This record gives sequence, C-alpha cells and structure tokens, in this order.
Amino acid sequence: MYNDIIELSKRRGFFWPSFSIYGGFSGFYDYGPLGVLLKENIIKLWREDYLEDGAIFIDTPNLTPEPVFKASGHIDRFSDLACECDKCKTKFKLETVLKYNGINAVPKNLDEANEISAKNNLKCPVCGNIIKKVYDFNLMFRANDMYLRPETAQGIFVNFKLLYNYNKNRLPMIVGQAGKGFRNEISPRQSLIRLKEFNQCEIESFFDPDSLEFGELYDYLPVKLLPNTGDVYKKTVKEAYESGIIPNQAMAYFVLKTQRLLNKIGIKNEMLRFRQHMPDERAHYAADSWDAEALIDDEWFEIVGIANRTNFDLTNHGNNSSESMTVKIGEKEVIPYVIEPSYGIDRIILSVMSQSFYKRDNGYNVLALNEYVAPFHMAVFPLLKKQKLQEKAKELFSNLFLKDKYIIYDDVGSIGKRYARQDEIGTPYCITIDFQTLDDNTVTVRFRDSMQQKRILISDLVSQENPLSALNALKIVQ
Amino acid sequence: MYNDIIELSKRRGFFWPSFSIYGGFSGFYDYGPLGVLLKENIIKLWREDYLEDGAIFIDTPNLTPEPVFKASGHIDRFSDLACECDKCKTKFKLETVLKYNGINAVPKNLDEANEISAKNNLKCPVCGNIIKKVYDFNLMFRANDMYLRPETAQGIFVNFKLLYNYNKNRLPMIVGQAGKGFRNEISPRQSLIRLKEFNQCEIESFFDPDSLEFGELYDYLPVKLLPNTGDVYKKTVKEAYESGIIPNQAMAYFVLKTQRLLNKIGIKNEMLRFRQHMPDERAHYAADSWDAEALIDDEWFEIVGIANRTNFDLTNHGNNSSESMTVKIGEKEVIPYVIEPSYGIDRIILSVMSQSFYKRDNGYNVLALNEYVAPFHMAVFPLLKKQKLQEKAKELFSNLFLKDKYIIYDDVGSIGKRYARQDEIGTPYCITIDFQTLDDNTVTVRFRDSMQQKRILISDLVSQENPLSALNALKIVQ
Repeated sequence: MYNDIIELSKRRGFFWPSFSIYGGFSGFYDYGPLGVLLKENIIKLWREDYLEDGAIFIDTPNLTPEPVFKASGHIDRFSDLACECDKCKTKFKLETVLKYNGINAVPKNLDEANEISAKNNLKCPVCGNIIKKVYDFNLMFRANDMYLRPETAQGIFVNFKLLYNYNKNRLPMIVGQAGKGFRNEISPRQSLIRLKEFNQCEIESFFDPDSLEFGELYDYLPVKLLPNTGDVYKKTVKEAYESGIIPNQAMAYFVLKTQRLLNKIGIKNEMLRFRQHMPDERAHYAADSWDAEALIDDEWFEIVGIANRTNFDLTNHGNNSSESMTVKIGEKEVIPYVIEPSYGIDRIILSVMSQSFYKRDNGYNVLALNEYVAPFHMAVFPLLKKQKLQEKAKELFSNLFLKDKYIIYDDVGSIGKRYARQDEIGTPYCITIDFQTLDDNTVTVRFRDSMQQKRILISDLVSQENPLSALNALKIVQ
Repeated sequence: MYNDIIELSKRRGFFWPSFSIYGGFSGFYDYGPLGVLLKENIIKLWREDYLEDGAIFIDTPNLTPEPVFKASGHIDRFSDLACECDKCKTKFKLETVLKYNGINAVPKNLDEANEISAKNNLKCPVCGNIIKKVYDFNLMFRANDMYLRPETAQGIFVNFKLLYNYNKNRLPMIVGQAGKGFRNEISPRQSLIRLKEFNQCEIESFFDPDSLEFGELYDYLPVKLLPNTGDVYKKTVKEAYESGIIPNQAMAYFVLKTQRLLNKIGIKNEMLRFRQHMPDERAHYAADSWDAEALIDDEWFEIVGIANRTNFDLTNHGNNSSESMTVKIGEKEVIPYVIEPSYGIDRIILSVMSQSFYKRDNGYNVLALNEYVAPFHMAVFPLLKKQKLQEKAKELFSNLFLKDKYIIYDDVGSIGKRYARQDEIGTPYCITIDFQTLDDNTVTVRFRDSMQQKRILISDLVSQENPLSALNALKIVQ
C-alpha cells in the first residue's frame, strides 16, 4: 500500500523526490500542485484550531546565529552517534550497525559507544569490513557563519519578551510558527517520514509554572494510550488525566486538542495512539513527552510530539543573552514553563493519504480525503466535448470559482475516466453538465464515496455563499 | 516617515530585527503576529490572482545541490564585486567604495575592477586606508554540501517535464512557487528592503517561443513607464504594448497583471512605475526585464521583477542533466521560453505599509490598509468593562469568529484608545457593544477612514455568510 501511495503521488502530482533529473539527493521531496494544496489545507486547519485558543503566530528566519543554538543546547547535544566504514565509505547511524551486528546495547554517549565498539568487532552492513571510527554527528546544517534551524521553536523563545508585551503581559500565552526545519539526517528514508528539510508547525504555550492548566477538558472519543509504565489503555484523554496517566492538565489539554485536530484532518482513531517517551528517550530539553503516533502500513510513526520543555529554553536564553526572561505574576518572579505540541506536517500528509487510500472492486484507486483537506472540493465536467455543453460547464465553473478557488475543470477523456481521476486525487464531488442541463438547468452531482448521483438546480448551487454547503446538504438528504 | 513605520512595526508586532537579544544580525527580520497575517493575506491575493490564469503551484526545497546552480549559472555568475579593507576589516560592495572615491566607472568583471583599483588609490570609506583586494563575492550561502537557493525559480525549472505532464502537455503553462530565498548580501540595509533571507513569490510562465501571447490585454489605469530608451510615458499598459514600448504581448500581460495586483494589495499608481532594465543591468539569464518600482519615502525600489528568461534555464538544465527539456508542438521541437514575474513580498509589505500610513490632525497614526490585506477585518469591543457588556461582546465575537477568523476582541483601556490602536494596525471596522445594544440588539460600527459611526442590527451582521459584506454595504450607503 505504501508503494501505491508513492506511485500515485508522483503520477498525480502530490509529491516526488527532488532534483531527480540530477540523479536525486535523498532526504528531499517536492510537493507538486496537489500536494501544495493538501499541505496548505492542513496548515490552515492547524492555525484556525489554535486561533480558537487565542494563539498568535510569528515567522522567524531559517538561518540562525550560533549563540542561539549554543544557549539552546543544540550545538553540544543535538547529535546522533554515527560511524563510517573505512573501506566502502558508507555512513551509518551507530544504532543501525549495532542492530546489524546483533548487539542490543543503547550507548548514551560517545564514550560508551567507543567502549562497545572496542569490545565487539562491528562489521559494516554493506561490505563486511570492521568499523573503527564512532563519532558524534551534529544534525544541524552549517551555512557560512550561521546554522539552519533544526526546529522552529527557538525563533519563538528568543522573542519571548516582545511577544509577552504584545500579549499584554498575560499568561498563558500561546504562540505558533509554521515553517521549515532542517536536519542533516545520516539516513533519510521512507519518502516523507525522514527528510533533511521538513515542514513543521509548532506551538509554544507559556504557563505560570504553578498553574499548568488551560481550557476545558471534555470527553472525546477514546484513544490508545501508552504511558511509559508499560501499561496500555483505551480511554478518553479526560479519563486519562483524571486517573493520573497524563501528569498535568495542560499536557492533557494539548493531547486532547491534537487528537481532535488529527481526526479532523483525517487520521482515524483506530490508527492513532499516544505514547509517552521513556525517560532515556526524551530530547535534551524535555521533562515529559507524549507522541501522537499514526499507523502507516503496519508501522507506527511519530507525527506530533507534545513535550513539556519546562523553562529549559527560556532559562538558558536568559543566562546567555542580554534579556531577562523573568516575568512578574503578582508578587512572584518566574520564568514560564512551556508545553509544546509540535506537528510534523510531512508525516501527517503521508498518514492522511495512506489512511484514506483504498482500491475499489474494479481495482481503481480512491483517496477518501475529507473536504477540509482535499486539494479540490469539486470538479466540473461537460458530459461530452460538445460546444454547448463545454460553454455551459465553463460558465458554471467560473461562477463557482468566484466563491471557491479549490475547484477544477476537466473535459479530457470519458466521463468514467474523469470520475476515476477525481476519486484518485480525493475530490469529494463531481458536477456534470449534460443535455438535460440545457433544458432544465439541473446538473448531476456524483459523490466520491458512495458513487451515487443526484440532480441539483444550478441556481441552488451558485446562490450559496459557500457552494459546498449545498452539496453537503444533498449528501445528507441522501 | 520611514522611521515611523519601523517604530510602529516593532511596537505593534508587524516586524522587528531578528535575534536582537543576542545583539542582532543584520539582514534578518522577524514577522510578528500582525506581520504574519499581513504577509499571508498578500500571498493569498497573489495566489488567487494567478489561479485565475490556471496557474499550478509547487513547493521545492530551500537546500539545493550544486549541479542545479552550476547549470543555472549561479555558481559562476551570481556574485557581487567586493573588497575588504586590510586595516579595519570592513567589507564593502565595490560600487560603494567607487562612489565614495568619486569614481564613476561601472566595472563589468573582476579584471576591469582590478584595473580601476590599480589606477586609483581607493580609500576605505571607514578608516581611509588604501584598499588593495577586489574579489568576486558569490551571494549564495553554502550549507554543508549544498546551497541555499537565491531564488525559488530553479525548483520549477528542474521539474519542468513532470509539470508539463501534469499540465496535460499544454503550453502556455503557468507555475508558481511561494517560498524563501537566501542571498548573502554584503550590505543588508533598510529593514525589509535588502534581506539575507527573504520571501519570494515567483511565477514561471512557459511559452512556445513563436507565440509569446497570453490572455486579454485591456485598458486599465495609466501608469508611469520608463523604457530603457530614456523616454518617460504615462500610459496604460495596453497602449504601451500597442505602441511598441513593451516588446511582446506576454510581457505586457504580466506587467498589466502586476499593476492590477499591486493596486489591489494597496500600492497606489502614483507611487508605482515600471522601469525597463538597461542592457548592462540585466541578470545573467534575462533578455529583457521590467521592474515594478514603488515609492517609499522619496526613493524608488524594485518590488517586482518581470524578466524574459528566454529558454536560458531550461536549455542549461537540459544540457547538464539526464532530462531533455524539449517539447513537441505540432511538428516542431522546441525548448519553451519563460516570462517570470517575481514578487518580493517583504518589499511589497514595506511599500503597502508606508503608502497607507498617515497621521491624523491629533498626531495619531493611521494605517489605511484595505480589507484584503489588513491583519484584522474587524475589532469587537464592549463600551465599558461591565459584565453584561463584556458577555454580549464576547458572544458576538464568537459568532463572528465562526465566519471570519481575522477578528480581534479588546476590552483594555478607553474606547478612544482602542479606536486609536485599531487605526494604527489598519483594522477597517470597529464594532462596539453599548447599553443600547442590551435594549435593541444594535451595535455601533465605526469606520476607520471616515471615523464616522453607524448602528446596525446584530442579526444583520451575523446572518451573513461573510459579515464583511454587511459592513461594506453600510459604508456604501453612508
């Protein structure tokens, strides 16, 4: 199924490997015309969802000077243990080589790694030669005298005081940033799963450390929860918080919010779980982390990480820069705590596409994307390439386009082929102009999921400010 | 006035220098909460405007491998002549040093530059020492084994064949990309004017070289035109094309389109001109270029460049990669020509803000942004901090928010101060809940530009799919 998605994505214009005419460079993918629309729809949902919490959004540079990452710990601690084969020159993550050699150890630092390497003759998985060098490989790209950011978060932290002022000196404060992140992964893989340049939507929510509470927790659909005690639960997030599985209310709030948002985007609850990091698995800045993991082709992947960064980042920037990060709450001086839901948009795209993909009995592909994220909301066809039908179809297309830009016109090939093409790219509604239209100004609406057809008056469609609501109503009546 | 904009931008959250807590790094600016909204509204207008031409959009990486820029000429030819003072170590563009030394020459390459430098004792503008070294300074950032793209365009060119296939093998084909570009400017300056990391929206329109025609040219408002003959015209673009001032129809089409789009964004025609590049001024890939220049504080700046790139890029990628860039049109095999309107979004933002800025008689600032681009469409206030008024105001805010996310709630300070705050950030309508509201469910609408007030029924406002249309109607009736 994964291969079906990859093939469909390239053929239909969702995504494909970048720079392929120059032989390809692993870890880089382009979004094509449909992928751009899908991606932007997802980012829009993310943004509007957090706007409801009063979030503000900023946009800071990808290029970042060294002092920022010195303070944040990324220069000293944002690295993978790596090794290189002297003979075939292949570079590996150390864990790949250990696994290949049947060694179970998880070295925590370079010293431990060298010890393990010295005790065992680690064979190169490619050529079998003995691997000698183990080293720390920093995952950041260096560009002239700067670095490319490995996460968008630091751009928010360094601006904390300006933002706090904008926010009228109030906590909690919710700040978001959508942008690119860059990590010089040693082994990029599985298309959009592990990229060197990726799309990230991060929220930094700043709290009084004594009051990690926010918004209302209510019961939503149960989801699979894996706390780091090794237990497995199927509970609502509210229940999980109330029974102490999720340690604080703000963390529970953002887990619940993430579940709802992912459901809205099209991730199914039965293919979603929240897994708490083991203590030795957490990023250097995190006191607690819960990952939203999605099932893609029988494998679970992190698609959102929700971390309690405490005041690690603000404290370090306060100590290393000219700015105090302390705020006054009543009589108290505190450095705020941060809960961070961080969304990996590329992985979310791959999850949504793969979870909504199926084949009809005739072998045709369907991408059952919902209206919120589908690249096109509607397609407009003339039944045949006859001038009168084409003119009428183009007129309808133009009228609908004035109200909804996510609409496509197509008159190439048979009507069956055009339905199939729209099914494959996820368009929920196809509208066809036929000979009856010329008589009574009705059109056929064909529904992607049920494949049923209904007639509707053109005037009922174009009289709406949002034509989708008319199509939705028709679907519900059905 | 420029300084007013800079001050307002930082204080109100439009934009500010990045990383200022670490002392600042010139050439980098952050967009704050209001700037993000303004920027996205402008990009949305750009995209929707080109969607009308059937444009498709892609998104390709910032990091780009060397072969791409070797083929495109950016490694060999995308450089500035620069020099460095041995004594004070300041780096300059050579043209700055020549100007300072009263030398009028414009050297075209390093040899000519060294000749001029040898003949004259060029004094350092900072310390007066004689400058010896002149060198070519490539403007691209190198990141590990890749480069940061200096323009988004190449990501489109290397994908030409995939896109042509997506476009059902039809020309003209219009492809757009919105994204970041990076140039290691020797002297970044004037806030958003010359950045090392900038926002670019580029359109590459591919044509049959024998048929550089597209869309309909019609008469629009006259604009100032400066062809490279030295003449000055005040004409419509259509007239300019028909009298031969603009050399081909496609170039005229995109000049006209750009004028209309910039007008819609808020650039005034009396502060806009189109200037044709002199032959020795054009980029290495361009056969003809017309710049849209905007007036900011009595100085003209390029904000859009419209270049005829011919088939320079496609030819070079065809010669250097595994892919042929030839297409078949009837019996003819051709490499398409490209006309490229390239929008510098940061400069457009600065132009719009400065052209719409004025002070009222009382000294208060106004940013007369139009609805399309204003960060917030409406503000909702309770007249006073009384519970009943606040509850009613929050209820209205929630109802309006369901239909329009670009809306702000404010109950801090006097009503006069709140009007002033909204005027300064460009909000066109303020809606106030007062005691009369509790009686008759009407609210006061206050118009930013006229400062007039009118009453409207809440039901007339929230019954609309788009509440702005009700406010607009009220303004027009007025």
